[in-house]
Amino acid sequence: MPEKVLVYSRFPKALMLRIGERYELLDAAGKPPAQVFGADQLADIRAMITAGGTPLGADMMDMMPKLGAIVCYGTGYDGVDLAAAAKRKITLGHSPGANASSVADIAVTLMLAAIRRLPVADNYVRSGDWAAAKPSPMMRPQAGMRGRKVGVYGMGEIGRKIAARVASFETEVGYFSRSRHDVPYQYFPSLEALTEWCSVLMIAVRAGGDTHHIVNADILRKLGKDGYVVNIARGSVIDQPALIAALSEQTIAGAGLDVYAKEPHAPDALSAFPNVVLSPHIGGHTLESHVAMQDCVMANLAAYFAGKALPYEVRGA
Amino acid sequence: MPEKVLVYSRFPKALMLRIGERYELLDAAGKPPAQVFGADQLADIRAMITAGGTPLGADMMDMMPKLGAIVCYGTGYDGVDLAAAAKRKITLGHSPGANASSVADIAVTLMLAAIRRLPVADNYVRSGDWAAAKPSPMMRPQAGMRGRKVGVYGMGEIGRKIAARVASFETEVGYFSRSRHDVPYQYFPSLEALTEWCSVLMIAVRAGGDTHHIVNADILRKLGKDGYVVNIARGSVIDQPALIAALSEQTIAGAGLDVYAKEPHAPDALSAFPNVVLSPHIGGHTLESHVAMQDCVMANLAAYFAGKALPYEVRGA
Repeated sequence: MPEKVLVYSRFPKALMLRIGERYELLDAAGKPPAQVFGADQLADIRAMITAGGTPLGADMMDMMPKLGAIVCYGTGYDGVDLAAAAKRKITLGHSPGANASSVADIAVTLMLAAIRRLPVADNYVRSGDWAAAKPSPMMRPQAGMRGRKVGVYGMGEIGRKIAARVASFETEVGYFSRSRHDVPYQYFPSLEALTEWCSVLMIAVRAGGDTHHIVNADILRKLGKDGYVVNIARGSVIDQPALIAALSEQTIAGAGLDVYAKEPHAPDALSAFPNVVLSPHIGGHTLESHVAMQDCVMANLAAYFAGKALPYEVRGA
Repeated sequence: MPEKVLVYSRFPKALMLRIGERYELLDAAGKPPAQVFGADQLADIRAMITAGGTPLGADMMDMMPKLGAIVCYGTGYDGVDLAAAAKRKITLGHSPGANASSVADIAVTLMLAAIRRLPVADNYVRSGDWAAAKPSPMMRPQAGMRGRKVGVYGMGEIGRKIAARVASFETEVGYFSRSRHDVPYQYFPSLEALTEWCSVLMIAVRAGGDTHHIVNADILRKLGKDGYVVNIARGSVIDQPALIAALSEQTIAGAGLDVYAKEPHAPDALSAFPNVVLSPHIGGHTLESHVAMQDCVMANLAAYFAGKALPYEVRGA
C-alpha cells in the first residue's frame, strides 16, 4: 500500500501527478486540512508537501502526531515554524537550486520590462495609439541598461545566476550578502552601501525574520529617482506601503515584482502604476523547473520513507 | 550663417535640439517636403537627416539639386535608394553601432517576455484574476530558457550583443550569417539549418532586397510548435501574413516584435494573440542610444560641411 502524504498548499493538479503515482495524496487543496480530513485520517500522516511560503505552525503539526517530514516544493521554507518542527523532530526538506535558473530569468525579465516599460509599450501598439500617433509621455526615452550599476542583494544560487545574466547587459554588478563570495562582482558591506551605489536593486535574499521589511523607505530613497527595485524573493523583504509611497512620490523610477506582502495579490495601489511590472509569483514556473522541483520532492519522500536522511534537507532547521 | 539641413522623417523635437543649435533645420515633420517648403528653399539644401527605414528615392533627391549628404539617424539605411544616391554623388552616413546595446536589450526583453508570457501575467495580477484564483490556461508552465537552443540570424554588432546576452541564460547559441565570424557560437550554413536546430529565432540581419520576406512560412514551420521568433531588425524580413498564419495555426509558440511590415503598426490580427509581445519600434529608444546616434549625426554633418569624408559613412553605397 502506498504511503499517505498530505498536500498542504494549493498546487495545480498537474504538479502532483508524478508524485501521486507513487504516494496516496491527501490533498486539502489549500483549505485547512482539519476541514477536509477527519482526525483519524490526519493521525496516520507521516509526511507532507507544502509551499515554503505557506504558514505552517505548531498547531498544525500537532494534528499529525506521526508527522516526521515536511517537504517544501521549492527553495523557500520561510512559512515553516522551524523551532516547532525541530522540537517535534520533524525533518525539513526543500528543492534547493531546482528553480534557480527560472527565478533568475524572471528577475531579469521584470528588470528589463520595467526599465523599457514593456507593458506600456505593448499596450501602446495594441490599442492603436501608436498608429494614431497619440503622444505618450510614458514612452519617452529612458536610461537603458548599458553602464547601469546593478546591485544584487543575496548571493545564493539565484543571486549568482541573476548577477551572471545582468553582467551580460554591459552593466556594472555589485552585491551585498552576509558574507563575501568568490564572485567577480564588487562587494558592498551593507545593503545601505549597495543601494547608495546602484540604480537597480535585485532582491534575491532568503526571507526570514532578519530580512523582514529590510527594504524600507530609507533604502528606497537611497536607490534614487532613476532607481528600480526588482523582487523575486519574498514579499516580506520589502515594506510594501513604503514602496507604494516611493512610487507615488516618484522617489524611485519603477519596480518589477513577482512576490507580494500578501499572495495572491489583489489589485491595490500597486496596480495603478504604469511604471511597475507585476507577475503572479511565477519565478519558478517553467516546465524544467517543475521537473527539477518534483525530482527533489520525490527524492526527499523516498529517502524519508526508507528511513534515510533527506538528500535535500534544510540544514540547521 | 548656419547651414540648412532638411529633416525628412518625423522625429520628436527633443531628438533634434542639439542638432538645431548648430544647424538651421527645415523640418517637414514627416510630410512630403514639397508640401511644406517652396522649391527655392529646397534648392538650397545640401544635407538632410532621415530615418533609415523611410523611403527616399530619386524623385525626392532631384528636388534638391545641391543635395550632397543623406545622414540616417540610426543604423539602418534600407529606405534609401542607394543606386540613385550613388548616381548623384550623394554620400550616405548612418550611426553604426550607436544603438546596438539598446536594440540587443529590447530583443532579449521581447524574447523573455514572450516565453514567460509577461504581458498576460501582468494583466492576470492587475485585473484581480490571480486574487480570484481564476483559472488561466495561458499561465500554465512553459519551457523556459535553460537548455534552449537560440539562433541568431545576422552577426553584426547587434547580433553579437544579442548572442552574448542570450548565452548568459544557460542556453546554446547558434547563428547564421553570410560569413563565419570569430565568435564562440555554433555556425550554421543556412537560415534553414539554423531554424531547424533552434527553438528561438532572433532576427538581427540588415534589411534589404536579399532578406525581404526571408522568414517565410517554411522557416516558421521549421522553428516548430515550441518555437518563438523575435524581430528587432526590420518588418520586411518577415512575411507578416505567414507569421499571422503560423500563430493562428499554432505551428509556432509565440513571437516578440519591435518592427512591422508597416509602421506605425495599426491593430490587426497580430494584436489578437496573447502569446505575442509587441513594442512600437523602440529598440534604439534609450537616452544613451539617442546621445550616441546624435553624436554620429553631428559628426557626419560637421565633416560633410567641412568638405571631409563622413566618419560614419555607409561604404559601398
